[in-house]
Amino acid sequence: MLAEIITIGDEILIGQIVDTNSAWMAQKLNAEGIRVKQISSVSDDREHILNALAEAANRADIIFITGGLGPTKDDITKQTLAEYFNVKLVLNTEALNNVQQIFKRYNRPLLEVNRKQAEVPENCEIILNSNGTAPGMWFNVDGKLYVSMPGVPFEMMYMMEDAVIPKLKQLLNLPVIIHKTILTAGEGESFLAEKIADIENDLPGNIKLAYLPKMGQVRLRLSAYSNGGASLSDQLEEFAARIVERVGPNVVALEDIPLEKVVLNYMTDNHLTLSAAESCTGGYLSHLITQHAGSSQVFLGSAVTYSNDLKENILGVKNETLYQFGAVSRETVTEMVAGALREFKSDYAVAITGIAGPGGGTAEKPVGTVWIAVANTNKTVVKKFTFGNKRPQNIERSAMAAFFMLITLLKET
Amino acid sequence: MLAEIITIGDEILIGQIVDTNSAWMAQKLNAEGIRVKQISSVSDDREHILNALAEAANRADIIFITGGLGPTKDDITKQTLAEYFNVKLVLNTEALNNVQQIFKRYNRPLLEVNRKQAEVPENCEIILNSNGTAPGMWFNVDGKLYVSMPGVPFEMMYMMEDAVIPKLKQLLNLPVIIHKTILTAGEGESFLAEKIADIENDLPGNIKLAYLPKMGQVRLRLSAYSNGGASLSDQLEEFAARIVERVGPNVVALEDIPLEKVVLNYMTDNHLTLSAAESCTGGYLSHLITQHAGSSQVFLGSAVTYSNDLKENILGVKNETLYQFGAVSRETVTEMVAGALREFKSDYAVAITGIAGPGGGTAEKPVGTVWIAVANTNKTVVKKFTFGNKRPQNIERSAMAAFFMLITLLKET
Repeated sequence: MLAEIITIGDEILIGQIVDTNSAWMAQKLNAEGIRVKQISSVSDDREHILNALAEAANRADIIFITGGLGPTKDDITKQTLAEYFNVKLVLNTEALNNVQQIFKRYNRPLLEVNRKQAEVPENCEIILNSNGTAPGMWFNVDGKLYVSMPGVPFEMMYMMEDAVIPKLKQLLNLPVIIHKTILTAGEGESFLAEKIADIENDLPGNIKLAYLPKMGQVRLRLSAYSNGGASLSDQLEEFAARIVERVGPNVVALEDIPLEKVVLNYMTDNHLTLSAAESCTGGYLSHLITQHAGSSQVFLGSAVTYSNDLKENILGVKNETLYQFGAVSRETVTEMVAGALREFKSDYAVAITGIAGPGGGTAEKPVGTVWIAVANTNKTVVKKFTFGNKRPQNIERSAMAAFFMLITLLKET
Repeated sequence: MLAEIITIGDEILIGQIVDTNSAWMAQKLNAEGIRVKQISSVSDDREHILNALAEAANRADIIFITGGLGPTKDDITKQTLAEYFNVKLVLNTEALNNVQQIFKRYNRPLLEVNRKQAEVPENCEIILNSNGTAPGMWFNVDGKLYVSMPGVPFEMMYMMEDAVIPKLKQLLNLPVIIHKTILTAGEGESFLAEKIADIENDLPGNIKLAYLPKMGQVRLRLSAYSNGGASLSDQLEEFAARIVERVGPNVVALEDIPLEKVVLNYMTDNHLTLSAAESCTGGYLSHLITQHAGSSQVFLGSAVTYSNDLKENILGVKNETLYQFGAVSRETVTEMVAGALREFKSDYAVAITGIAGPGGGTAEKPVGTVWIAVANTNKTVVKKFTFGNKRPQNIERSAMAAFFMLITLLKET
């Protein structure tokens, strides 16, 4: 079963927003055995949308469309779908009722533009939008399914989970695609490829291997497509096991999870607590951890000490250390990590101090110089890194390197 | 001048990564007057890539291709481009030299797969990759330009900035597209639309208005396409001024910047300092601020106090307050913001405490309950919010609401 995703909106084509909807949808669809053939982003332009719909219907069985359903003039997806199917727009009472209830709940007058949101092409079934005024639309025309949803991420997500996916499962006899990801760290893509070249050569036609490098990590993703033969899962696991054995100590996890989740899972299972002291990462490491549900079991807190005063006051870094060696030094990061352990009373702590850039670099300590320390009550490990000169990458890399060091220390003990 | 972007990689189509490259490229291209007509994500599949190239060349003048240039088997962009142009792959000595130098720098043996990265279609000019082993490729065939770059974001970004954009500017007589964004807050899309309906009706054919809603904000984007007439910029500014006057107090900024940048810019200009005390946002608010270069002029630091102990120890929240009213309460957030002001000695402070979810909610304080306080030495403003039940949205909304409250307080004083 092949699908395509069409995202509609000038804001994507001028780069004002990043299209995160498509990746989310593709993940959900793949999990149900629906393969996404292509993702196309097109402008809020009648002719362009009509062409994109026709092209997608040529290649795929299900066409998902997001965006362009707002109440304003620039949103023309609904009218264009009506034109594509050669039908009229009609007022849908169920959708109107939903709009009215939303406006009532917020005690707002219902405007004419909002009433119009309840008009839909006459050949569609509507999908109720429990989070907004634009209804989703479901079309079944000439053996192809078309599903149109709002571009606002959480409105689309609720619709997919509550209505669209269940409906697809009910309607279609879905094939099977399964994925297995091996998360590796500390070794480059080429070296991994060389190491497992013979295993890759042994892969049958229905199993694909992809290398997904990302900031000091490489995810090895095996994808198996059902060929109606023996158990797909067994076949996949066999090759995964061979790769894991070969790659050895660089394997960090056997699932596609973020690096901080490897830390969290391990520490949760072992009832360990963590605290942090962040300078150049400015809260990013803490955010990566605390975005995950249940992180409060492990994470006690963090001192984001941008100023030297806060390094002294909260973490107890000595004034003479800062004066003699500077804020970005082995000595300072060592006192920061010790301060976090002592003040926050956690089992483990991580500290980061560096020059994220673009300013603040010197000949001796150029932009990208970062000191990281991880510690438990028995052991402290300190490393210096020299990253590049782009601020966002330096922040990201510092956090990733800190998680690696923490995983290594956790594994040791 | 029309461009298309083709991103190649199964990892995008199964949703394992979000394509952030396209938005970044689209922004850069638009700034140079190159309009992106379509963005297509296709799989690492020979036939699919060939079709995508042909379709894009039909619609656009310049085709940007990212991804599929790695050293591993699943990357087939280069071979497919050679097939598309019906040429051979040849070893490029400049590219080989680059690969050799990179391996020398990291003291790593050069593998055969890496040497192969220096092979390129014979009809291309290479674009040196100063951050990786895969060269970019520039083709000029039958009046169309094709630019192929790695999918690793920072490799692509350096290439675009250092080589591709300068080359395009030199080669092409570029037209003009200008954008103007009005950032508004605190009012919904429909109400704004109703408010400025007559202004929108007055817009000439070469100026488009788009509404871009995003977590409590709506960006109004005017885009003007040169029609060879009077000054495009004057025309755009005239309509922008009318909208700004009409929308009034809900206008937060006259440029397309994130909300925290509005705060940073104002505080930098007025030499004010900020600190934070974050519970449920777990460092996210600090990260939003510190991702920006120069934020250290304003931001002193933050206490990410996930545990109650840290709320007491770092911020001086009273034990009896936590016991009597709970961590998520008007009383606690008030003491948190006072603690941040006092302990971190900043001019302004912001504090957030809430239940991000999915766990931790009660009948009285359901998931999504968030207390936010902003303060300077003279005034403290405290508000309670009731957001939804999704953790990431609750974190994002809390941070955005806090920035709004801060902007309002800053404007007052």
